[in-house]
Amino acid sequence: MSLPATSIADNTRLEDLRRVLEQGAVRQAARMLNALQPAEIAHLLESLPHKERELLWNLVDAEYDGEVLAYLHDDVREQLIALMDAGELIAAIGTLDTDDLADLIQDLPLAITREVVKSLDQQRRDRLEKALSYPEDSAGGLMNSDTVTVRPEMTLDVVIRYLRRLKDGLPDITDNLIVVDRKGRYLGVLYLTDLLTHDPEDSVAEAMTLDVQAIPATWSAREVATRFEQHDLVTAPVVDEEGNLLGRITVDDVMDVIREEADHQFLGQAGLSETEDMFAPVILSARRRALWLGINLLTAFLAAWVIGRFEDTIQQIVALAVLMPVVASMGGIAGTQTLTLAIRGLALGQLTSNNSRWLLMKELAVAAINSVIWALVVALIAWVWFRDPQIALVIGAAISINLLAAALAGALLPLALERFGIDPALAGGVILTTVTDVVGFLAFLGLATLFLL
Amino acid sequence: MSLPATSIADNTRLEDLRRVLEQGAVRQAARMLNALQPAEIAHLLESLPHKERELLWNLVDAEYDGEVLAYLHDDVREQLIALMDAGELIAAIGTLDTDDLADLIQDLPLAITREVVKSLDQQRRDRLEKALSYPEDSAGGLMNSDTVTVRPEMTLDVVIRYLRRLKDGLPDITDNLIVVDRKGRYLGVLYLTDLLTHDPEDSVAEAMTLDVQAIPATWSAREVATRFEQHDLVTAPVVDEEGNLLGRITVDDVMDVIREEADHQFLGQAGLSETEDMFAPVILSARRRALWLGINLLTAFLAAWVIGRFEDTIQQIVALAVLMPVVASMGGIAGTQTLTLAIRGLALGQLTSNNSRWLLMKELAVAAINSVIWALVVALIAWVWFRDPQIALVIGAAISINLLAAALAGALLPLALERFGIDPALAGGVILTTVTDVVGFLAFLGLATLFLL
Repeated sequence: MSLPATSIADNTRLEDLRRVLEQGAVRQAARMLNALQPAEIAHLLESLPHKERELLWNLVDAEYDGEVLAYLHDDVREQLIALMDAGELIAAIGTLDTDDLADLIQDLPLAITREVVKSLDQQRRDRLEKALSYPEDSAGGLMNSDTVTVRPEMTLDVVIRYLRRLKDGLPDITDNLIVVDRKGRYLGVLYLTDLLTHDPEDSVAEAMTLDVQAIPATWSAREVATRFEQHDLVTAPVVDEEGNLLGRITVDDVMDVIREEADHQFLGQAGLSETEDMFAPVILSARRRALWLGINLLTAFLAAWVIGRFEDTIQQIVALAVLMPVVASMGGIAGTQTLTLAIRGLALGQLTSNNSRWLLMKELAVAAINSVIWALVVALIAWVWFRDPQIALVIGAAISINLLAAALAGALLPLALERFGIDPALAGGVILTTVTDVVGFLAFLGLATLFLL
Repeated sequence: MSLPATSIADNTRLEDLRRVLEQGAVRQAARMLNALQPAEIAHLLESLPHKERELLWNLVDAEYDGEVLAYLHDDVREQLIALMDAGELIAAIGTLDTDDLADLIQDLPLAITREVVKSLDQQRRDRLEKALSYPEDSAGGLMNSDTVTVRPEMTLDVVIRYLRRLKDGLPDITDNLIVVDRKGRYLGVLYLTDLLTHDPEDSVAEAMTLDVQAIPATWSAREVATRFEQHDLVTAPVVDEEGNLLGRITVDDVMDVIREEADHQFLGQAGLSETEDMFAPVILSARRRALWLGINLLTAFLAAWVIGRFEDTIQQIVALAVLMPVVASMGGIAGTQTLTLAIRGLALGQLTSNNSRWLLMKELAVAAINSVIWALVVALIAWVWFRDPQIALVIGAAISINLLAAALAGALLPLALERFGIDPALAGGVILTTVTDVVGFLAFLGLATLFLL
């Protein structure tokens, strides 16, 4: 699944727009731009350098501003919010769904936030407060309050007539109505498909589905995503501890969760944040990157220090200096494979303390086989190269030791890190390579000192 | 978004099941197991070592076998299929949706495939053929043929009566009916929400939505996912070149696409496949890993060869051997950051040949700043450590050169690789570290040879 980006959906339309802009046909560009979906506009803005981005942002119809902001990653969003005055901002986000509003409002200057909250009617204010009372990446943070509820004793006929009277129709992405009792406690869902296919005289109780369990507002976004994926849900009701209906989560927000978690996992390894703007200001990027480079510099100097302990050995056998990076890098590669597999297992919830022993055993077995193979290969090459059987033996042994250490570290690190509340996707790689570098240099130069001098 | 795996949804239920199994209460385990969703059973099977997996597989009700197989990754699926005889297989998958069947049938032994095809009625056979005529990761491969179509001239009243007569109701995940003309050409969709809220006397033409564009069957899975994400779709119609309705794609399959692509990107960097079974047989895993280790060994020896050209230099200044890994690793880290950002930009379709120049310029600017900072830091440490200002100058210069080379390689590699049809997520990392190792050692040892001897 890796085709040229140029074949991404709508890409051509975005390219056309860019071309029109470059020709300076601003009016036409504005028309084309505002014909796009808010998400597409957001996508286009994110793929533009800052100047172009701001230029284009000014062409977006005010009525779309709010939704577009809701789709943007934090970095880009902050840049564009900074361009808007209080009035524009309030007009833009005042109309958003509660979940988007709750998500957005946390990026606003306090003064604006107060203004926005003031501009909301009591009901929306209550909903916003409710949404803000849950962390952003929890079920409560993901939920929206646009639920349409019915009672079990109503007949489907009554329900249909009730729906016809709804002035602004049903909310987008509605596959079911939520059935609650008098006290507002969640009972089940009535799928529109059942509403349409059952006898109108039937009661909601007869046509409703009971096996859609409501999601507790305290669940993490990741748990919500797993539930949606495994139960093929389109929407799911959210409840509090007492089972009272709080709102609902829709699949479009869940797709965003899956995408963000994937970004976090992928970018995290390189010490980047999923909110990273590809075209962030140079200074900002430089500062962020510097932190990561600094951390890695420490590990690099730790490795150098290890080598330093063996200066005399290297002095006498320079071949060691030539070969030592091979030992370290082979360990790093093998360890990364195990680490990657384990991190993904954790993310999918398929690796737990219960089966981690199995994974460890398996990875050690794999490492054992590969350590033999590659010890021989590397030893042979070293022998041919430096015509010295002893160096060949030493590097072979060092490779074996490092591959086993790599498997051990790769399999155990993720679980250990998580137990300490450290994100393996972020810290795993650095620690692993520290281990494989240190063990690699130590084993190779240590053995050489013992047997070759 | 990185919480302990133990809090993954349903995890506790899976743990309970495991415990019951360990106590040997097979009957009870079977009951618990078959109470789960097929996707949950698949998830559980994938998180078990082979023996337990096969044991559990035998407890799954035959009626669920097909669906569970459809949810499994290829490796695990092949293992379990190997345990089933022709009869079981045919019974299991005969009932699957066309898209799942098409996906599964490609993993079956030819003899079985023939049997299965024979067991299908003409209509399903035609649908299967149609599905198989498109690549697995295309819109045609993702689509299902369970469409419910209506004509524009029908009144909503007639439509509702027609739906009530459908013997097995509407298919799962139906948010709209597809409107086609007499020739079966796609015209638009009629959302169930509109069907329910409009006047029953209205015609479909009056209530239907025209702005849901049909997806061409030739679109890639990635394009489909982008469309679903940007248009917040639940289902989308699929058409051929002439605009004839072929089938529809549902959001549950799209979530799988996003998940698989993320896995591919994440595992690919480590030379692993997204079909990788965490508990694959040791020999199989060892063979797969060996390939990756072999490729990386070449690059490691290339770096070693570069160092080898400077044996005399190292002989005279052993400090160089101690410090050279620092130069290489700093380059590797910085380059990986740029590479990761670029690969993700490509995957999201936000990095194209149009704005790649911008990214390159920005990354070079960031590298320029960091190269100055870290050249100074490293030089200072080296000076303090080896009390030699010249070595400090040389390593500082080498760091700067390597960080710039890293940015250049990291920004240009992905686009270049894709132009040659090579998957950057797979090959990018290896090539990048080769560059940063070679440039790092060459710059450091080369400058040392020129100025320190």
